[in-house]
Amino acid sequence: MNALEQTCREIFPQDSSYREKAKKRLDHLAMPHWALGDLMDLGIDLAGITRSMDPAVARKAIVTMAGDHGVVAEGVSKFPAEVTPQMVHNIVAGGAGINALARQAGADVYVVDVGVNHDFSELTGKDNFIGRKIAYGTNNIAQGPAMSIANARRAVETGIEIANELSDSYDIFGTGEMGIGNTTPSTAIAAVVTGRPVAELTGRGTGLDDDQLQQKIDIIARIMDVNKPDPDNGLDILAKVGGYEIGGIAGLILGAAARKKPVVVDGFISTAGALIAHVIEPFVRDYLICAHRSVEPGHKYMQEALGCTRPLLDLNFRLGEGTGAALAMNIVEGAKHVLTDVATFAEAAVAGADK
Amino acid sequence: MNALEQTCREIFPQDSSYREKAKKRLDHLAMPHWALGDLMDLGIDLAGITRSMDPAVARKAIVTMAGDHGVVAEGVSKFPAEVTPQMVHNIVAGGAGINALARQAGADVYVVDVGVNHDFSELTGKDNFIGRKIAYGTNNIAQGPAMSIANARRAVETGIEIANELSDSYDIFGTGEMGIGNTTPSTAIAAVVTGRPVAELTGRGTGLDDDQLQQKIDIIARIMDVNKPDPDNGLDILAKVGGYEIGGIAGLILGAAARKKPVVVDGFISTAGALIAHVIEPFVRDYLICAHRSVEPGHKYMQEALGCTRPLLDLNFRLGEGTGAALAMNIVEGAKHVLTDVATFAEAAVAGADK
Repeated sequence: MNALEQTCREIFPQDSSYREKAKKRLDHLAMPHWALGDLMDLGIDLAGITRSMDPAVARKAIVTMAGDHGVVAEGVSKFPAEVTPQMVHNIVAGGAGINALARQAGADVYVVDVGVNHDFSELTGKDNFIGRKIAYGTNNIAQGPAMSIANARRAVETGIEIANELSDSYDIFGTGEMGIGNTTPSTAIAAVVTGRPVAELTGRGTGLDDDQLQQKIDIIARIMDVNKPDPDNGLDILAKVGGYEIGGIAGLILGAAARKKPVVVDGFISTAGALIAHVIEPFVRDYLICAHRSVEPGHKYMQEALGCTRPLLDLNFRLGEGTGAALAMNIVEGAKHVLTDVATFAEAAVAGADK
Repeated sequence: MNALEQTCREIFPQDSSYREKAKKRLDHLAMPHWALGDLMDLGIDLAGITRSMDPAVARKAIVTMAGDHGVVAEGVSKFPAEVTPQMVHNIVAGGAGINALARQAGADVYVVDVGVNHDFSELTGKDNFIGRKIAYGTNNIAQGPAMSIANARRAVETGIEIANELSDSYDIFGTGEMGIGNTTPSTAIAAVVTGRPVAELTGRGTGLDDDQLQQKIDIIARIMDVNKPDPDNGLDILAKVGGYEIGGIAGLILGAAARKKPVVVDGFISTAGALIAHVIEPFVRDYLICAHRSVEPGHKYMQEALGCTRPLLDLNFRLGEGTGAALAMNIVEGAKHVLTDVATFAEAAVAGADK
């Protein structure tokens, strides 16, 4: 059996007995019932994911997957493709948005080259760089598939391997990505999986104007038409309209779920990766925490397809890199502390409400 | 001149030159323009508040003001009044919701007895308890004023003193409160200041049913009718329909603003305190960061009256104590790190967008 199938066999739903135990404790905390709202719902999830009333979330890793996209030849991005390797260097050097927010949250950042169009030999030996290049970018998906099925599998299994390697050192993962042009494949994935019209899902990415937006919609419609991905086959979707970093994210999520660790899913592109993982193995949904609502219009529908109607944050982010996931890790940690540190009415000798 | 008037003289708007400097830097960060949205707006505020491009926010204090309310005699709360002193003990002992979330955020918690109906001599000497009792609770505002004008001033000046005392040790303050029955005076304050109908502003507090909600609306309407507070006079509003902890919060905000420190305003009751401060000195608005949107229906209108249309969090909280403020401090710290730690395009040698 391959790593992917083996991993999927190890993904189970949350443990309902720990969910029940957590709910019972939270029901009796010395406060008006469920007065910390979404944080208490999240506390139940953490207990159910980790099978523990003291869910570990202190050791945090953001894994930022990087890849390039042949479809930039169609003019879908305002930024030139060389920004992908430049930003990989910037993250490794600690100067990107994700570094700032991960530092605040007490998370370590790892950048993974899964498919960047650059030779990163100069980064060999850097602690926070993981070189796992499968290719120097995808093919132009407006003309044909992004990659072979074999490479799609390799991308997902790379993410699984990284989850396995980091699992001994970290309790919780956050997804992130860097890849100029990657809102286009992500929107195509959203269209395949949600079945919604491309125009409804397509946004301005890093800053397109009206004409450029219409052009992007036309290109994504063409991508769908040329490739005809199978909505029930995650590897087929990834191979036809995906990206290497998106496959890596899908694998990271599958690997983390198999290790019973929560995964905080960042923005639009990360959620496309989560959709791929979810098509491959629907039980992963139980391990996902949606960090925030991106300004990309399709994000809402993608999150709904994962059963997430209330992401933790809504701060007009449209960056990616894992920035929303890093910031949301504070809230996840807050939910853990509410479960473990707050006294019940009985423990605190506080009178309850009238019935 | 009294402490209140002296403090108001020391409150100025944000410094526009530091706002400009911060905007200029954030405009050039190596990311799509303004891709960290609200966090970048907040970064400008922090620079404008602190007059610094390296705004200090690391040393965090939550100040939880406590007081009792004569109006509980009208049956406005599900919880008995003795819960106020019980929860003061619980917070001092570290077992309340605010302790859990402050711990996560790296904030210290101080509980202040401004007007609790209990003698706390047993807490004397506790580091996190500040005894500044003005009275053993307010009078029943359904029958007359909550307190004298002299005591209203004392409550506000108590908050100012505490801000002054803590200012050498802390960079940022979060407001919090504990006081059974205090959504009723807070709703009355909201009605006075926003001019909106009581029914539109009144919520279920800690869990009222439909009949109890209607009864609460009727009582608040009566409170307004009996007291006729002057919407242009903050001390008059506080004396007639307020509470000791609400006055303490107003003072903390005024004191922090005079010291040029940001104040994270918690939920419904804290926002009532902020409204009082804002009536007394409108410039305080420049120092306020609205932590979250409470489930209480009036909260939105109160925040709008303070110029805050996008609170940082919306997690179905309805607890108070400072819990939303503590959790939001992570986001404020994130905004600081974005301003200070992220490289510009030039610094990171990253190519910019096409124009």
